[in-house]
Amino acid sequence: METVKIIEIKQSVYESNDKEAEKLRNELKERGIFLLNLMSSPGSGKTTTLTQVITKMKDKYRIGVMEADIDSDVDARTIATLGVESIQLHTGGMCHLDADMTRQGLQELTDKSIEFAILENVGNLVCPAEFDTGSSMNAMILSVPEGDDKPLKYPLMFSICDLIIINKIDVMPYFDFDMDKCIENVRMRNKNAKIIPISAKTGEGIDELTRYLSEKIDNWRE
Amino acid sequence: METVKIIEIKQSVYESNDKEAEKLRNELKERGIFLLNLMSSPGSGKTTTLTQVITKMKDKYRIGVMEADIDSDVDARTIATLGVESIQLHTGGMCHLDADMTRQGLQELTDKSIEFAILENVGNLVCPAEFDTGSSMNAMILSVPEGDDKPLKYPLMFSICDLIIINKIDVMPYFDFDMDKCIENVRMRNKNAKIIPISAKTGEGIDELTRYLSEKIDNWRE
Repeated sequence: METVKIIEIKQSVYESNDKEAEKLRNELKERGIFLLNLMSSPGSGKTTTLTQVITKMKDKYRIGVMEADIDSDVDARTIATLGVESIQLHTGGMCHLDADMTRQGLQELTDKSIEFAILENVGNLVCPAEFDTGSSMNAMILSVPEGDDKPLKYPLMFSICDLIIINKIDVMPYFDFDMDKCIENVRMRNKNAKIIPISAKTGEGIDELTRYLSEKIDNWRE
Repeated sequence: METVKIIEIKQSVYESNDKEAEKLRNELKERGIFLLNLMSSPGSGKTTTLTQVITKMKDKYRIGVMEADIDSDVDARTIATLGVESIQLHTGGMCHLDADMTRQGLQELTDKSIEFAILENVGNLVCPAEFDTGSSMNAMILSVPEGDDKPLKYPLMFSICDLIIINKIDVMPYFDFDMDKCIENVRMRNKNAKIIPISAKTGEGIDELTRYLSEKIDNWRE
């Protein structure tokens, strides 16, 4: 396995995270960097989904990945094997990333010409939703085994996302998961989010996902 | 569906949660109440597991259940259909419960003769691990679809639990989940926790789980 750079993220000192987030977003826009903030529960398949996405998109965009984790560097090493820059952000027990912490991570990416930066946030459906990271897009993954009722129980997360990926559709036959009901529940929280069902394992839906991301990246960088 | 009492939990004002937790634990011990604090990721099957456990144990113990949720009362209504007292604690966006919030919940249970109180904590592997609720036992559920590497990534949660339930073993054939590897990863964080694999859906392992809980309750109430 690759070795990766591990960054110990420091707690932010800024009073207004919203202000710092807006500032970071504007800076990234000027520099032509699209930042994707990817959130989900633990074990929803963030890293596996990113593996698929990066494999399909790395020839088109210069990609840099920041893996946030309380501990361990498993995910960053997995991503590094794909041949893109990947660093691990250790949050020291913190349950989310905010804009300043994201900035600390971006500064550690050595390739300054990246076009598509990806932040894999801490696996948590609660706290990350409360902190704007300065990203160009908020995306989340809901996996089939978690159940179609999750939008009812984690309303903020579902309401702040531009993109909701429904992963592990290959195991739908083995779970009581109703896709129509799930979409209906998502729509109670979020009228406009793009919803894309995928299986990161089999590759189903990945083409639609990468097409959607490419379009958003190209629009952002125009 | 049943209607249930919904309690809006207030933020705690105590300086030392550890002190409040110890005080609550001692009070509960004196009153002969065993308090189980059940934690997990969103969608790991806390409510389904509780449904099985309560069905098997409600004739032996007087049970009261507190369902913590950011919003909705889905879980409390599900539990109420089993014929035990069930209340919903709304945390107003808070990502965990502490001892004072747990006390607020316990005070709202109308049956003052309960022997087995269950707190279904907010679905989150990070924050709930940091706050002692005053429980007699910390338990968590890890479900097979989340992956066998989770103890590496959420170390605190795995280290503070007395009981680790591995749920959804019925779908093991459809996931890359290695039970031996999982147990090895758990042991890196926690040498002593009891590990019980179950399927809350098929009922497999539930007898072992209820036997274990009964033993702990009886010892506590001696």
